[in-house]
Formats: sequence, C-alpha cells, structure tokens
Amino acid sequence: MSKEITSREQDYSQWYNDLIIKGGLADYSAVRGCMVIKPYGFALWENMRDVLDKMFKDTGHQNAYFPLFVPKSLFEAEEKNAEGFAKECAIVTHYRLKNDPDHKGKLMVDPEAKLEEELIIRPTSEAIIWNTYKGWIQSYRDLPILINQWANVVRWEMRTRLFLRTAEFLWQEGHTAHATQQEAVDETVQMLNVYADFAEQYMAMPVVKGVKTANERFAGAVDTYCIEALMQDGKALQAGTSHFLGQNFAKAFDVKFSDKENKLDYVWATSWGVSTRLIGALVMAHSDDDGLILPPKLAPIQVVIVPIYKGDEQKQMIDEKVQVLVKELKAAGVKVKYDDNDNNRPGWKFAEYEMKGVPVRIAIGARDLANNVVEVARRDTKEKMSMSIDGLAGNIIKLLDDIQSAIYKKAYDYRAAHITNADTWDEFVKLLDEKTGFIAAHWDGTPETEEKIKELTKATIRCIPLDNKQEEGKCIHSGNKSVQRVLFARAY
Amino acid sequence: MSKEITSREQDYSQWYNDLIIKGGLADYSAVRGCMVIKPYGFALWENMRDVLDKMFKDTGHQNAYFPLFVPKSLFEAEEKNAEGFAKECAIVTHYRLKNDPDHKGKLMVDPEAKLEEELIIRPTSEAIIWNTYKGWIQSYRDLPILINQWANVVRWEMRTRLFLRTAEFLWQEGHTAHATQQEAVDETVQMLNVYADFAEQYMAMPVVKGVKTANERFAGAVDTYCIEALMQDGKALQAGTSHFLGQNFAKAFDVKFSDKENKLDYVWATSWGVSTRLIGALVMAHSDDDGLILPPKLAPIQVVIVPIYKGDEQKQMIDEKVQVLVKELKAAGVKVKYDDNDNNRPGWKFAEYEMKGVPVRIAIGARDLANNVVEVARRDTKEKMSMSIDGLAGNIIKLLDDIQSAIYKKAYDYRAAHITNADTWDEFVKLLDEKTGFIAAHWDGTPETEEKIKELTKATIRCIPLDNKQEEGKCIHSGNKSVQRVLFARAY
Repeated sequence: MSKEITSREQDYSQWYNDLIIKGGLADYSAVRGCMVIKPYGFALWENMRDVLDKMFKDTGHQNAYFPLFVPKSLFEAEEKNAEGFAKECAIVTHYRLKNDPDHKGKLMVDPEAKLEEELIIRPTSEAIIWNTYKGWIQSYRDLPILINQWANVVRWEMRTRLFLRTAEFLWQEGHTAHATQQEAVDETVQMLNVYADFAEQYMAMPVVKGVKTANERFAGAVDTYCIEALMQDGKALQAGTSHFLGQNFAKAFDVKFSDKENKLDYVWATSWGVSTRLIGALVMAHSDDDGLILPPKLAPIQVVIVPIYKGDEQKQMIDEKVQVLVKELKAAGVKVKYDDNDNNRPGWKFAEYEMKGVPVRIAIGARDLANNVVEVARRDTKEKMSMSIDGLAGNIIKLLDDIQSAIYKKAYDYRAAHITNADTWDEFVKLLDEKTGFIAAHWDGTPETEEKIKELTKATIRCIPLDNKQEEGKCIHSGNKSVQRVLFARAY
Repeated sequence: MSKEITSREQDYSQWYNDLIIKGGLADYSAVRGCMVIKPYGFALWENMRDVLDKMFKDTGHQNAYFPLFVPKSLFEAEEKNAEGFAKECAIVTHYRLKNDPDHKGKLMVDPEAKLEEELIIRPTSEAIIWNTYKGWIQSYRDLPILINQWANVVRWEMRTRLFLRTAEFLWQEGHTAHATQQEAVDETVQMLNVYADFAEQYMAMPVVKGVKTANERFAGAVDTYCIEALMQDGKALQAGTSHFLGQNFAKAFDVKFSDKENKLDYVWATSWGVSTRLIGALVMAHSDDDGLILPPKLAPIQVVIVPIYKGDEQKQMIDEKVQVLVKELKAAGVKVKYDDNDNNRPGWKFAEYEMKGVPVRIAIGARDLANNVVEVARRDTKEKMSMSIDGLAGNIIKLLDDIQSAIYKKAYDYRAAHITNADTWDEFVKLLDEKTGFIAAHWDGTPETEEKIKELTKATIRCIPLDNKQEEGKCIHSGNKSVQRVLFARAY
C-alpha cells in the first residue's frame, strides 16, 4: 500500500492525523491553527450541512447572515460572554496596508489607517445578533424569532488539531428569541434532540444527552445542554451544545417587548451550534487501522466500482455492463463512482478506497461477467460476497442500510461497555487510567470539587444526563453528600 | 399602504435602499459598511447559490474551504494582486483582549498578544490557495484542479451600498490550475458562459459578455472576462468576472509541474467569482415603484394565497379548499405560502407581497368558491385574472413561466434601446447625460485616453464585447485611429 497509516495501538493521535491527511479530508495551511478542508472532506461537510439544514427548516427556522466583525463595545456588553472569549479573540485594528519604504516590494500596516474602535472576529455571534434583534423586536407579535446562520468563526486556541480544534472553523449557530421562559427552554431541548437524532441516525454515533455543570457552561448561558460521544480511545467528545440563555443577552442589549397586556419584559433567548468538529468525531468514532469508515448516509461516495481486466476487449465488455449498473444505482439514489483510471492497479484502488472509507466496493472482472455476478466488499467488516448482477441495486441499498446499522451498533456496544460506576476514589482513578470511557460517580455538586478532580486527574464532568436517576451517595472526592451520579471522562 | 417607497423618478438611490430595507432583504448593522442579510434576502441568496453550485458541479468542479486569513508575506507575493488590494484590507494584528485596568468592565487589546506576522482578511483567495496548490501539484497527473469555494471576503470600501458594495460580502470564488494555456483560457470562457446563462435564464437579466481593458482588469490577471448588465437608471453593473491568470500566481508561489515528457513548467490558472452583489443587480433590473419584482425561478415565495372572508364559517370553507390547492401546487414543485394571519387585512397583505416581489398572488373569497374560481394577480404587470380552480396548478406553472419570460423581455428591450452609437465627443457626452445606457464608441486602445475620458465624464469602458465587430474609426476623444467600438457607461 502506498500510504501507510500509524495503528491506533501505536499512536492514537498520529493515527487520527494520518486518516485526515491521507484520507484526503483536510490539509495543514500556512496560517497557524487554520486548516484547508479538501474537496473530499468538504463533500462530507456538505452532506452533514444539508441534512442538518433540512432538520432546522423542518422545525421552523430560517437562515440569515450577520457580520463577521463585532465592535469591541458590543463584544463586551454581556460581561460573562466577553470574559469567556476575551483570551482567544482575533482582533482587527487597521484597514489598510502601504508600501514599506525600507523594503522594496514589501507591504506594511499603514499606521494612519487605525480603526477608531477595534473589531473582534466573531468567536460566536450572540453580541452582534442581539444588538440587531433589538431593532426587530417591539411586541410579542415579533416573536418568536427563529434564525440560524452557517458561518466561519475564529477562536485563537493555543493547541490545535485538525477538525477537533482549529483557530477558524465552520459551524452553524442558531439564535432564537422568545416571549416566555418556557418557550425558550422548550426550544433549547428541541434543538438538543435534533442534534442527538442527527448524531445517531446519520453519523451512526451514539450520544449521551445531558446538562453541563456551571464550570463547563457556555459563557453567558443559564444552562448548557450537550450531546457527548465516546471515541475509540475512551475519551469523550462534546459534539453539540444548545444553550438556554435566559434574559442575559436581552438585558445586556436592552431588548424588551410588550406582551399582550402591553407590559414590557426582556426577551428570552437560546443559541445552539455544531461545527466541523463533528467530522473529527465521525472519523474517530468508526475508523480502523486501514483508514476511514464513513456511514453510508453521509459518505460522499457510497459505492465504488473497480474493473479488473486484461486488454481492451475485456475492458469494453465490463464498461458496457457497468454503465447499466451505474445508471440503475444512480436512479435508486446511490452515490456511485466508477473508477476506471488506468494509471492505477486494482490493488492500489482497493487500498485507496478503504483509506477513504467508501462503504461498499464492487469489483467486476471478465469471469464475473460470464457468471453474471460481481464481487462486493463492505468496508466496515471487510467481508466479501458474490452478488448476482440481477437486482443488484436493491441489494446494494439493503447492504448500505445494514452497514449504517452495523457501525452504529458497534459504536453503541463499545460505549455501553465503557460506562462504568466508580464508588471510591481509587476505583475512579484506576478506571480512568486503565479502562477509560465514561465513569459514573457521585459528586457533591460544588464547582470546587469538580475543579479539584480535574486538576488531579484531567477528567471533567461531561454532563449530568437528562432524566438522571436520583440516588443518595457520597462524593467520590470530598465524601460529602451527593444526590446523583454524573458522567466523568477525559475529553477532547 | 404602511410602508412608503420613494419613487425611482424622485430619488433612484433612495428607491433602491427602500426596496432592500422595506422588502426585508437586508438591514444595516453596527459594523461600518457591513450588512445583515435577513431571512427573506438570504433565502433568495440560497436559491441563487444552489443553482450556481449545481452549474459548477455539472462542469466538473468541487467545493473546498481555505482559511479566512492570509499571512502578509503570502499576500504580497504576487505584487500586482497585492498592490490592487493593499488599500482596502482589514488586518488582524492581535489575538487576545484583556481587562482594561482604567475602565472596570471594559476590555482592551492586550499589547503582549501581538502577532509576529500580521494576517490579512482575504479580499480574494488567490494567495492562500496558490500557496496550498504548491503542495498538491507535482505532475500533469495532478491537473487540472477544479475547485470552488463559497466564502465571505472583506474589502474595506470607503463608500458602501447594501448588497452592491459592502465591506464584507458573500461570494463564490473558483480557482483552477491547468497544464496548458489553452485549457485555462477555455475554462475562463466556460465559466463566463455559466455566469451569463445564470444571469439570463434565472435572474432574467440580459448581459453583455466581454473582456475588460487593462485599466479595469483584476489585479494579477492577464485577461478579465466579464458580464455587464444595465440597470433601470441607465447605469451599468458588473455582475460577474472570470479571470485568465496566466502563470502569474504559479510564478509568485513557484508552482511547477512535470509534463508527460518530464519537462518542468509553471501551472496555468484561472479564477472567477460572483457575489451577493447579484442581489443588488436583481433588485435594480426589474423592480418598480411598488416594490420588488423577483423572477419566479429564484423567488423564495412564488405564489402567495390570501383568503378573503367574513366570519369563521367562510374561513373554514376557504381553508379546506386552499389546503387542497397548496398540496397540488407543492406537488408540482411550486413554492407557495398561505397567509391566513388574521392580524392583517387583505389589502395590507396585497401591498406587503407586492413589496416583497412575490410573482403571483391568489385571492380567494366565498363568492369565488361558489363559482369554483380564484382571482390571480401577477406582480410584474399587475394584471388580474379569474382562473378556474380545476387544473389551477398547471395554469399557475404556465403563468410563472410567462412572468419569467416577460421580465426578461422587458429588461432585454430596455437594454436594446439603450445601446447607442456615438461618433463625436459632443454626441458621446450628451448621450451619457441625457439618454444614459451603454454608448458604443471608438477608442484608440490606450489606457491614457480611457483614463482621461473617465476623468471628464465618469464613464468607464465596461467591456470589449466578445466577437466584437472590427471596423475602422476614430477615437471619440483623441481622434486617433481605432479598430473597433467599445462599450462605455457610467457604472455601479
């Protein structure tokens, strides 16, 4: 095989980077912490985006677009939000370059083109959006506002990883405004469920739905709901968040509405987002040491057909048959590619499409043709089977469904085996180090204890699961009284 | 009518702004020169984007995503390109805010978080992309690269107008790499044709295809091809450009490939783009003093149905019938909205949807129902007609087609009447001031004359039309020898 991948056992981090780079999803760029999303990776993102966009529209949301820049005075209006993002902001201070008099052919920032007020590149858009909503909302008749935006945002992270944590990333951010607290809470939960359904049904990735503790909450939120997934190395990954913002932003931007009784009140808010980070999650949830494993529902190429032939005559016979098959598969809605590029041998192609995680590979040779069959290989299990050419499209669709279910089940079983109760500190630490995964343990509910546990073990409380069982117990660390177990893990 | 629009005759500029704001397409923002694209305007952009995206993919292009930031050293590598954009660049110089010790609750740029190298926010992405292509291209086998990106870009313009010229705007930029000059030129022309087809067939906006003069060329291009449209005030608008970049960027970024004979050569390049500016063009091409007129093929709502009733009983009868009609229209692919909001009277709704440019309005009352008819009004001509409820969907689709053709024809006839030959300077100036539109006049081919004419009249050469008739003449200004007429106009 031309491209070697580091195995998971050898170096999990390097395995991940190898998959991203050699699978053709993304590339490093000349800008610190920023990546280039390559066509294959972007096609995957487009598929994810299109499904999510439909889910948002089906739940009554519309898309809009707000400015990339947030003037500093707006940025600092909601203090907790500002504090939370201040340390990782890219800041525009000038609006012109000029020729550098000391270096011919070089440019320098023109000191005379300094902005009166600095502009922050949005790390999230609550500030600019709530400042806009102020002009749109007077009465209850103007509510709810249900808007989503697909955009790029920038957070100047010190340690970056392709897709998982990049200085610039692509995401969607929903920002809604409501007349009542209940309606805003319902919206927050509804969008959490949309995210969970997307993760499970499309990404084939089981998630825990829960609420964050105060320490892990979005800066400026009253409550942060989240979906948490488990990666193959036993580390957790926050895959999406939905925030109930209370009236915090309405107060910061003075957004009031008159209700049916003509009484003035502040508007209630939510925001919710998922990002290109989901691609990192998808890669780590399913892939193996031979490359990516992509769920059929999101794969840019679902089926690849590789011809195996000697000479032009065989090639021509195969071509004719494949043209019919491709037409049938496309008509059935299957994304199929026929790779008859004669620069590469079949073995090279097999390895290449395994690397790229194409769910189904069909090989067809002269003898197959004589027998009216093709060889079908599934990427997830590497199983090979012979299938009749008659009725192939229907059987391929069934196989794609099977693969979608199988990789979900595999991930589900792995996670089920990696949610473990710990009742003593020693047990907790041992499980974290040796078994990994989610550890369900009692916690006394204080930020101090949570912080202490994080310092000692690098484990954080991933969430308090929704509808969590209430049971009395003693905090794993402080020994103080606890009313429920929460999910700890080391996390991305 | 609740929202009054300034008439075109009274103040064309204000008329345009009124349409954008009151039609709900966009809003001003707190950031100088940046706008908020509202849901109705964004839905229009989504429709345009989806059609263009399909046209790009049908011609073999794939989408990808490159960083927002361009390090200064890359930005200045292609000198002409850098020079062209240097004066309108937003520049990131710092990556952190800190608490302002002198103003409690306020933030300030942390002087210790200064970037070693400034980052330019992309005004266009040739630099960052060609720096990336360098790593992707070794041999002719890696070519062509046919990539498009949908992105936001920033050009710090001093005078901005909603959609037409904003500091941040949304666009697509194609960037292709080829082994031969001919292939790159063919690609440039192909994409110009894609743009022209889109403008004429979807936007219903006739365009002239041509080549820019050296003065008006994209900074860094060998040739800039363009489509030019004519607005209702007789001013021209550049609606899309396609650039043949020669080997300029390949040389600036040292991108070479080995051909089949193993000989090294620089790669040939193109880039091409259209932006949210097209929305401004669309608005100005067709609309009237009552509001927007949108072409059916791009309208977010193609048909609106308004019930006219007294009392619940009539309402219920109408609702039942409308539900059937809506289902039929949706099944036929028509974007239909039933507006039975009882906060607003029918007259208010009629004016509102005229303002928003919905191509077809259907009104249905109790007497109509008894007669098995509806009242249908077309937005473009204001014509009203009675249509049988039987077979309505089919007739509405036909009507939408008619409207699409009619507004194209109207714009085409207007433009045909506004391409005028001028043979003397006096005639030229008089036509520019009194008749407006494109003036076809002889030009001696020198940048100096072009510049002089611009100084004197504010008219620029919009383009040298493709397949332009060659005829001998004398330059309108210098009197020197000329081989062809070119199209002059005042422009947006």
